[in-house]
Amino acid sequence: MDRIADLQTPALLLDQARLERNLKRMAARAAALGVALRPHMKTAKSVDVARRATAGQAGGITVSTLKEAEYFAAAGFADITYAIGITADKLARAAALQQRHGATIGLVLDSLQAARAVAAQADALQTAFAVHVEIDSGQHRAGIAPDDADLAEIGRTLHDGSGTRLAGVLTHAGHSYNCRSVAAIAAVAEAERAAAVQAAEALRAAGLPCPVVSVGSTPTALHAHSLAGATEMRPGVYMFGDRFQAAIGSCDTPDLALSVLASVVGVWPRDGRALIDAGALALSQDRSMEAIDVDAGYGAVFDADGVRPLGDLRLANVNQEHGFLIGDVGDLAPGDRVRVFPNHACMTAAMYDAYNVLDADGAIAARWTRVGGW
Amino acid sequence: MDRIADLQTPALLLDQARLERNLKRMAARAAALGVALRPHMKTAKSVDVARRATAGQAGGITVSTLKEAEYFAAAGFADITYAIGITADKLARAAALQQRHGATIGLVLDSLQAARAVAAQADALQTAFAVHVEIDSGQHRAGIAPDDADLAEIGRTLHDGSGTRLAGVLTHAGHSYNCRSVAAIAAVAEAERAAAVQAAEALRAAGLPCPVVSVGSTPTALHAHSLAGATEMRPGVYMFGDRFQAAIGSCDTPDLALSVLASVVGVWPRDGRALIDAGALALSQDRSMEAIDVDAGYGAVFDADGVRPLGDLRLANVNQEHGFLIGDVGDLAPGDRVRVFPNHACMTAAMYDAYNVLDADGAIAARWTRVGGW
Repeated sequence: MDRIADLQTPALLLDQARLERNLKRMAARAAALGVALRPHMKTAKSVDVARRATAGQAGGITVSTLKEAEYFAAAGFADITYAIGITADKLARAAALQQRHGATIGLVLDSLQAARAVAAQADALQTAFAVHVEIDSGQHRAGIAPDDADLAEIGRTLHDGSGTRLAGVLTHAGHSYNCRSVAAIAAVAEAERAAAVQAAEALRAAGLPCPVVSVGSTPTALHAHSLAGATEMRPGVYMFGDRFQAAIGSCDTPDLALSVLASVVGVWPRDGRALIDAGALALSQDRSMEAIDVDAGYGAVFDADGVRPLGDLRLANVNQEHGFLIGDVGDLAPGDRVRVFPNHACMTAAMYDAYNVLDADGAIAARWTRVGGW
Repeated sequence: MDRIADLQTPALLLDQARLERNLKRMAARAAALGVALRPHMKTAKSVDVARRATAGQAGGITVSTLKEAEYFAAAGFADITYAIGITADKLARAAALQQRHGATIGLVLDSLQAARAVAAQADALQTAFAVHVEIDSGQHRAGIAPDDADLAEIGRTLHDGSGTRLAGVLTHAGHSYNCRSVAAIAAVAEAERAAAVQAAEALRAAGLPCPVVSVGSTPTALHAHSLAGATEMRPGVYMFGDRFQAAIGSCDTPDLALSVLASVVGVWPRDGRALIDAGALALSQDRSMEAIDVDAGYGAVFDADGVRPLGDLRLANVNQEHGFLIGDVGDLAPGDRVRVFPNHACMTAAMYDAYNVLDADGAIAARWTRVGGW
């Protein structure tokens, strides 16, 4: 069995014990809050991770691309919510996917125009689409306001369509990522819940069914005081955690399951500079921690075991295949290995086609492939 | 034959006429400057592009990963410079690649320690490595100063090694990207040339051969007044161009060959906001234009034909699968297509596994695959 030292760098590492602990923690949260866990696979994009994330759950998952939906449906996942607003050009592919695998690909939309287009095309495609109305609970990305006058008509259009079924409402409080305290996240979580429930009640008051009331981001799932009225939550990045999530209180550094193994290429002690072979492609260029006023560089640098932070070293810049370590580099030599914990796990994982899965002894227990693209 | 309208979004588009024009322009530059063109394939990572980029040239290419080297060697490219400082762990793979395909994988290093390690391992691996000494011509990323006292000893170690051959010197003036004028780029180009030639002369003065004197970035290749003493140049991003290169004078907007086709997912005219289905993964999170004080958002938004800029719209933010258009969105409707010209072609292209190649009539003339990973 390979060990870390046998890997070529850069390589993506996944600590299985940390992953399993993170999965259990969120499953316990869902149980405590009385909702189903429909994990968002946009971070992991891996069947092996999805099987573990759905263990003991209802089995439904969330995806961010039709490519993911196809990959997971082919692996036997039969209840998949594609949580990005659907456009007309993607319907034929979604229909083909349902027909091929007997899966349900739940769709999302937020306008009357889209509802009418989907209803019309479902007829033409001779399929049945389960459709959620996306609600804006404060992020102002996508979604209709829960008190929007169009909501009932969108619901009615989907309910009455011969090829569409009104599955429910769905919201994502992505602005929880901008919170600076657990109390602020709890407040966003309550706004998220309240908006979804308000929308569901508006539909029901119009005589429409609304079986699904779907909420969730990792921060709000972890810090909500109540999800009364919601039926499911859809967190994703909790599986791996990352520095951003650690900074806003979703996890601690010893929970971070994802890291990148890199090699030192050169050391310039007089300049206080070392280069590693993980750059913009191996780490991503994610700087999202700037939004919470944390200058985190391009990741946190640890020793090869991922235990000891190389505290004085800052991953200050990246070029395509180079990472710049700035600080006291006196202990480093070319060929040394370091571990970089990413700022944003979704972005970093997306640069690789597989995880090297570490067991408790630091051996590579498995190689789990992942899906990319669209 | 498919047309743009038939593509699922997000999709990567490559305008073949613009590509060919960019290739010809750089080939003419190399000829005028009297050097060989060894195109850097780190941007395109495509055999189809590489064949066109080397047409009429010596046939050598440059790569940024061993995975690229393997991909191009398998396609028949026999003279490949792997232009990132080599670490000991990668030598066995480079040796295997040479033996399997009969190709030469030129290596790069910049320290005595690395030279000794490569010389020792080349013996053990029973292969012959052609090795370039990397020179720092002012970027202060990698490389040894041309007047460094170690230079001759590094050269001697490689020359004397039974499995290593001193191929020459190589430098990359990446700091040309920070220039604000053509005159400043020309000055960096001269510093790049002078450093490489100085290092080559120092090696020759020590009685060592230095057949290759390799320079080049796209900006310096385009604006150098002379490359006297250099033997080759290694630009890469010129093939596609991007907004960054246009901003620093390497190309004009009508030269940009690479773009991303996206669909409008939703429009909120009162908020001055629209969403497209191309976000952080489809466009990359590249913000490198901040280095030249240009706030370019995440790309330039044009109509679906890529002809007319949607001038008032700013691609202000990206989430994983969402791009936020901010401005006067009144002309947009869900399902509309837009074209995004990226800030940094290398990063955006890296998110895809293929190019949809557009002919002069806007039809998809071919699908060219590309290589990713390490």
